[in-house]
Amino acid sequence: MTDLSPLDPHADLAAPPFETRHVGPSPDERAHMLTTVGYSGIDDLIAMAVPESIRAKDRLNLPAAASEREAIAELRALADRNRVLTPMIGLGYHDTETPAVIRRNLLENPGWYTAYTPYQPEISQGRLEALINFQTMVSDLTGLDVAGASLLDEATAAAEAMTLARRAGRAKSGVFVVDADALPQTKAVLRTRAEPLGIELVEADLGGELPECFGVLVQYPGASGRVAGFAGLAERAHAAGALVVAAADLLALTLLTSPGEQGADIAVGSTQRFGVPLGFGGPHAAYMAVRERLARQLPGRLVGVSQDSDGRTAYRLALQTREQHIRREKATSNICTAQVLLAVIAGMYAVYHGPEGLTRIARRTHRHAVALAGALRAGGVEVVHESFFDTVLAKVPGGAARVVAAAVERGVNLRQAGPDHVGIACDETTTEADLAAVLGAFGLAAESPAAASGDALPAGLARTSPFLAHPVFHTHRSETAMMRYLRRLQDKDIALDRSMIPLGSCTMKLNAATEMEPITWPEFGGMHPYVPEEQAEGYLALIRSLEGWLAEVTGYHAVSLQPNAGSQGEYAGLLAIRGYHRAAGDDHRDVCLIPSSAHGTNAASAVMAGMRVVVVACDSEGNIDVADLDAKIAEHRDRLSAIMVTYPSTHGVYEESITEVCAKVHEAGGQVYVDGANLNALVGLAKLGEFGADVSHLNLHKTFCVPHGGGGPGVGPIAVGAHLADYLPGHPLRDGSGVGPVSAAPFGSAGILPISWAYIRMMGADGLKAATEQAILSANYLARRLAPHYPVLYTGRGGLVAHECIIDLRQITKETGITVDDVAKRLMDYGFHAPTMSFPVAGTLMIEPTESENLAELDRFCEAMIAIREEIAKVASGEYDRADNPLRNAPHTADCLIEDDWAHPYSRSVAAYPLPWLREGKYWPPVRRIDQAYGDRNLVCSCPPLSAYES
Amino acid sequence: MTDLSPLDPHADLAAPPFETRHVGPSPDERAHMLTTVGYSGIDDLIAMAVPESIRAKDRLNLPAAASEREAIAELRALADRNRVLTPMIGLGYHDTETPAVIRRNLLENPGWYTAYTPYQPEISQGRLEALINFQTMVSDLTGLDVAGASLLDEATAAAEAMTLARRAGRAKSGVFVVDADALPQTKAVLRTRAEPLGIELVEADLGGELPECFGVLVQYPGASGRVAGFAGLAERAHAAGALVVAAADLLALTLLTSPGEQGADIAVGSTQRFGVPLGFGGPHAAYMAVRERLARQLPGRLVGVSQDSDGRTAYRLALQTREQHIRREKATSNICTAQVLLAVIAGMYAVYHGPEGLTRIARRTHRHAVALAGALRAGGVEVVHESFFDTVLAKVPGGAARVVAAAVERGVNLRQAGPDHVGIACDETTTEADLAAVLGAFGLAAESPAAASGDALPAGLARTSPFLAHPVFHTHRSETAMMRYLRRLQDKDIALDRSMIPLGSCTMKLNAATEMEPITWPEFGGMHPYVPEEQAEGYLALIRSLEGWLAEVTGYHAVSLQPNAGSQGEYAGLLAIRGYHRAAGDDHRDVCLIPSSAHGTNAASAVMAGMRVVVVACDSEGNIDVADLDAKIAEHRDRLSAIMVTYPSTHGVYEESITEVCAKVHEAGGQVYVDGANLNALVGLAKLGEFGADVSHLNLHKTFCVPHGGGGPGVGPIAVGAHLADYLPGHPLRDGSGVGPVSAAPFGSAGILPISWAYIRMMGADGLKAATEQAILSANYLARRLAPHYPVLYTGRGGLVAHECIIDLRQITKETGITVDDVAKRLMDYGFHAPTMSFPVAGTLMIEPTESENLAELDRFCEAMIAIREEIAKVASGEYDRADNPLRNAPHTADCLIEDDWAHPYSRSVAAYPLPWLREGKYWPPVRRIDQAYGDRNLVCSCPPLSAYES
Repeated sequence: MTDLSPLDPHADLAAPPFETRHVGPSPDERAHMLTTVGYSGIDDLIAMAVPESIRAKDRLNLPAAASEREAIAELRALADRNRVLTPMIGLGYHDTETPAVIRRNLLENPGWYTAYTPYQPEISQGRLEALINFQTMVSDLTGLDVAGASLLDEATAAAEAMTLARRAGRAKSGVFVVDADALPQTKAVLRTRAEPLGIELVEADLGGELPECFGVLVQYPGASGRVAGFAGLAERAHAAGALVVAAADLLALTLLTSPGEQGADIAVGSTQRFGVPLGFGGPHAAYMAVRERLARQLPGRLVGVSQDSDGRTAYRLALQTREQHIRREKATSNICTAQVLLAVIAGMYAVYHGPEGLTRIARRTHRHAVALAGALRAGGVEVVHESFFDTVLAKVPGGAARVVAAAVERGVNLRQAGPDHVGIACDETTTEADLAAVLGAFGLAAESPAAASGDALPAGLARTSPFLAHPVFHTHRSETAMMRYLRRLQDKDIALDRSMIPLGSCTMKLNAATEMEPITWPEFGGMHPYVPEEQAEGYLALIRSLEGWLAEVTGYHAVSLQPNAGSQGEYAGLLAIRGYHRAAGDDHRDVCLIPSSAHGTNAASAVMAGMRVVVVACDSEGNIDVADLDAKIAEHRDRLSAIMVTYPSTHGVYEESITEVCAKVHEAGGQVYVDGANLNALVGLAKLGEFGADVSHLNLHKTFCVPHGGGGPGVGPIAVGAHLADYLPGHPLRDGSGVGPVSAAPFGSAGILPISWAYIRMMGADGLKAATEQAILSANYLARRLAPHYPVLYTGRGGLVAHECIIDLRQITKETGITVDDVAKRLMDYGFHAPTMSFPVAGTLMIEPTESENLAELDRFCEAMIAIREEIAKVASGEYDRADNPLRNAPHTADCLIEDDWAHPYSRSVAAYPLPWLREGKYWPPVRRIDQAYGDRNLVCSCPPLSAYES
Repeated sequence: MTDLSPLDPHADLAAPPFETRHVGPSPDERAHMLTTVGYSGIDDLIAMAVPESIRAKDRLNLPAAASEREAIAELRALADRNRVLTPMIGLGYHDTETPAVIRRNLLENPGWYTAYTPYQPEISQGRLEALINFQTMVSDLTGLDVAGASLLDEATAAAEAMTLARRAGRAKSGVFVVDADALPQTKAVLRTRAEPLGIELVEADLGGELPECFGVLVQYPGASGRVAGFAGLAERAHAAGALVVAAADLLALTLLTSPGEQGADIAVGSTQRFGVPLGFGGPHAAYMAVRERLARQLPGRLVGVSQDSDGRTAYRLALQTREQHIRREKATSNICTAQVLLAVIAGMYAVYHGPEGLTRIARRTHRHAVALAGALRAGGVEVVHESFFDTVLAKVPGGAARVVAAAVERGVNLRQAGPDHVGIACDETTTEADLAAVLGAFGLAAESPAAASGDALPAGLARTSPFLAHPVFHTHRSETAMMRYLRRLQDKDIALDRSMIPLGSCTMKLNAATEMEPITWPEFGGMHPYVPEEQAEGYLALIRSLEGWLAEVTGYHAVSLQPNAGSQGEYAGLLAIRGYHRAAGDDHRDVCLIPSSAHGTNAASAVMAGMRVVVVACDSEGNIDVADLDAKIAEHRDRLSAIMVTYPSTHGVYEESITEVCAKVHEAGGQVYVDGANLNALVGLAKLGEFGADVSHLNLHKTFCVPHGGGGPGVGPIAVGAHLADYLPGHPLRDGSGVGPVSAAPFGSAGILPISWAYIRMMGADGLKAATEQAILSANYLARRLAPHYPVLYTGRGGLVAHECIIDLRQITKETGITVDDVAKRLMDYGFHAPTMSFPVAGTLMIEPTESENLAELDRFCEAMIAIREEIAKVASGEYDRADNPLRNAPHTADCLIEDDWAHPYSRSVAAYPLPWLREGKYWPPVRRIDQAYGDRNLVCSCPPLSAYES
């Protein structure tokens, strides 16, 4: 085709690359910003900002940037290489029907998926209400008092339950007993998590004697399909001071006596089959519910009811002091996110179906299983269990592989459970044709006499207690009503589809529509995680190329995509270091150095990995105090395992000393863990693996465009040097090597990996670099514009920041009483989400603009911040009352502004429209400032009765 | 599989059918409503409401209802039977890339697609701004003063231009000259439309002498690809008193001297290639632009700038008195809709790309065509035209069919233009690989020397005038900015995703997500209308089954899906009647009887079909006055062509006399046209074709769930008895039979037919009937609840209405001065769209709830109406000032309520929150009441300068 080369797009005719849509500022805007910051070109700025010592020498070696159309075509081709069969494998993953109204208006709607974690509850009432629905659903179905707002997956939820049981139980034993009939991935993750903590994991048939233990996990129904009550077991366990964890299937619980009624203290499980696509293993929302007395021990997020300053019912995250970022190494878990988007889908599925709809689905699923068992038995096939819910275990001595293969030929995947057993799981979508195919795989005609109507649930275990009685599960049953409910909730919230979310360390960049489209294609959404590899060629090819690209971007040797949150990535990274030391016989190396500026999760992860945390001081500039580092290394030299640092630092600065720090730790035999939270300041400019780090986790939901989903899903892959590659997490059902799984699914949240794949594919090396450069420029532009009004803390060479900046309100607070909280809430009146509050330094705001915001939006934010500063000045000067001013009273609802009596010493219009452009599209906060303490004192974590809304 | 039959879903276990999601009220709610209306069962109500004489005897013969999942699977299978090749056929349809951000946030977003036509401008500012962008884009690119808000397709736009030229021109001639190089579908539609009006259509090579005429249409560039200026032609035409119509390609106009600059008086064309999927021919937005002096003659909708009662800039439909529903047979066009959703997409495409982006796309497209021509010439193939934009016409004597077939083998569709010529159209998406495939089809190696860089545009025709200078085309260039712009506009409007839209005669029912999903699948979206049938098997199968189902539902013999709006359906139906009479030698039958209650479009359509309108009186109950009918039949017996009636009547009543009316007309030799606007009151209960009608048009955008799109697209198929089947519209490029095409594309808006297909497929016979019954019950429930507060006009047997009811405000207006307008605007403060105002009777409101609204929403609406009635009572009692009260001042913006000085004698909270539930999710109108007259006096129909917003 060379002779068509005159066509070769001339620079001025080629379609602008995707980069120009992803990066907010235009070239003109960029030039203006550079001038403001005082540089003539971006290269000069970057040369000053980013230390030469860490700069990458070469351009990233990535495929040339694809257009949006080309990327979609390539993803389409990958999707076509996935062969989606009817998934009847079970093991905690079931086909389900996502109601189209939920898919379109929630899963495919940026108003939902681009929202941030609801730390600022006043602008998050929509998703908080959705999460309260989820918690109510879980609490009702499990028969337990309090449910959290979701965990990462069933297996890690089980591990969290194990450690909760150890903390809360009375037993002195170090043993945790796991049901022999538990899901294999749950057993494997428990094993991974137990060992570093010194917990002895004992697998037992729970029908027999219960070993001495501090806790026991019962799978209900079992992985084999068997259903058995455990009230007697629970009595025995409680008598021995042990806690009982039930890993339960919520759909089965519509028919079966709940865990709470049988004496379970904790219930965990997956809510995937409530409308969440399989996605080759994730993301899905797991749940945990506990008895009242354990409520304050719940890991992860918990939404609670409180009230606002007008006494109106309002939601917010409860018990925030439990956050690991406060408790650090004393934290009980490193979980710092949830699976909000998926939990919201599962909750809405329950809202849409209601209790009788869910029961109907469960009964239909069960009836299919019963009919299948009957037909198998009638055909002479032994069915192992008399009692089951949805899964039939058939015994075919020596024939399991043959049956499974025959089923694949008929378009159905079954579970091969050893050489002699085949598991068949029915679900919401099972049809008679599916059953006929299964029977065919057993060599039976569908015509063979089917048996037993009736059911196969154990006598005495039929559910009698009610559930989902709250009106919300009874009022949105038509599609029209559900569509409007979703819209109404969405409208309460601020997400990226309204305005900039300037969250330091959270990189709220564009989640492009092209990146998002493939994740709801059935070829990606419909795949069970345990299908044979040849059916998942497209997924595996996508995963391999994404791993390769991430390794190239970070300068590491190997990548694992398994960790499904940043916290899990940290944990997996530290396990790799631990595995490395142990392989070298250095079992005693257990000290993890962590700078005082670190994110609290680091310390929590280190403890979970069996390490002792030693804190390294930081200097007044927020940089690692190298003298203290030397001292700590000297003190712990022989036991030094690792250092965990964030780069650029959590203060948003490129520390010049980083290579030196790495060298010192290496010299002492330690490994360097660099937290990749701030990778958006490095991509294309510097490679972690090249300037001395051994392992990092990345946040695909920060740097690589996975949307925050209102508080999850996240993806936290780890990248390691060659010497650590053998210690990446494995998975018992995929590749048993490595240090054992850290997540339930082999590839974690595989279903959303197309997002990051598409981003890298469409940006290419130059686009990625340009994005990083713009992120740095934008942060410095903001710092420069805000500096005359607020002191900017911590800068590096040339007075520059990296990709975020911290503004210091401590002096202002001292002088005026106006706090970061007041500024954050007042920003809502200006239509903005607040920056990160009081992290890493109390009394400050950390602002990260990202590359995706254009100049107009950056300026709008600056105008708001400057106008707020002027309001603060009026407090200082006495023009505004110290207690009754627009800042302290923020946010202002339309309700409060339209009250006939306006009792404040400033005007309504000052409250509502402090800047003229607010009149062009005002966001109205749905509630006023929420009383956190009230809600924690009066902990309510399920749907409040409607009377609560009558004020 | 019989022995699996115990599985056969027991009634209580089967998944609830889609019908239960589509129909709003639950069984319990339905029972409550029946009690309120005074019936014990739905059958009793229906037996009383619907005259026995029209009741269908049998259940509809339709496939059993499919579930949402099954329907999607069947549509998926149909889609897979479409084979989408690279479409290089041209002829007015070009491949384009819909930006993903627009697809997701606009085309797939119910906030946009479920909105109604913006008759109520205060709650439609978002889409009105989007349409102003569209008008500005068209006006700028065509170089003409005023552009409308879109027409149905290029061919009908050309026909509208023809009649406009006849009205506006000075020439006495009855001849309209059409360019021999015009698009074939344009010529065919002009021919259809010219003949009944007595216009002589003359086709001419415009390079030669211009025949005497009142107007001439020049295609620019021509269908053959040729580009030639027409300034000289325009001068000659003007000298002869004729008007010049340019049918121009907007993309080409970024490079070529505009029609306005060459002297065109009118420009028409398609905006499809601005991001709108091909969809096998539609829906797309056509445009029309005219010189200032013709502005008040523009057919269709025109958006203009005006101001609200606070003096704030606001948009609304301009020059509303031109509406056919006012002018009836004196109307200049029967167009009563636009293609809003598609026009908004095209406008946003221009906003996203900006002038330089569009130019770059045009230049790239052109460069590909130039390279192709060069390579063809170099390979010894004759290229016919020296000057072209995107389309190359190659001469291959006797070889055209062979080349086209060879191209198909290579995955490309070309145009065969006779035996010797092949047309190849390049577009935005053309790649070098596409060109190589084309060359291969000509037997040329892609390696053959490519020629001529440079361009192939005529000297002197290069565009020099600027376009799209307004800031809106320069500020939303990043995806983030575009996403937010779409959200901000959407938030200004009320659509079905917020609340009930109770529009009489417009049937604003649920547009289900499952129905909408397939229309953005590439297999449906990417198909050119003129592909060989074997590539469109899926589409054709879908069309055939939909035609069959619609025939079954209506009781007719045959259906044509070609008309792409109700007005086009009316026209096509009357042409069928005309064709039938003429075939019988009854050319003189030209009288069309129309009841005085009819929708004005009926009369306008009759005139277009060459008929004389004779009005039949209605009695005080709104029914046809049978005595007057007898008199009119007697008077016009010999010339009687048809009667056009609506059933149930436009008054929302099942006229008992309908069978008698039909019989009388038939007896006199006339045909009966029943307007299907109110079919939602009949489906499953009565069949038009069985109770005496000969032909009807249906509104798929009313009864069959195509969303209104904010004012289009519509689909208006016609259904006819067997004797009229030969007179359905044909199409020159598909099936030349019938009376000639009424739309540009053979199957009209084929791209959205999957919506109606899915609706019928998922409802089945019982579901459709249940929906109709519920629609009737809901209307009667509303009538019963509102009757104590507002007189209900026109009822039938048992005091019942059909599927809508009319409430009469004339006495209230007389007593209090409060008008229907005041009530409509006040409803906005309550969060509702107004009912239909003053149709069919001035001073009334017509309310149609549809079956999709649940009881809670119906009650909410009733509460609002009753509360408004109480407000009116306070005006009557003097408690409220006659001039300054919440009704006259409605709607109230947040702005006006938060003003520091509140000067009204009622409180702010009364204005904003007259009912308590408004505090739970208030819609805020973005502007106050709009001054219609101001805007018409100061006609501005393109984007106002930003300074206009400074108040």
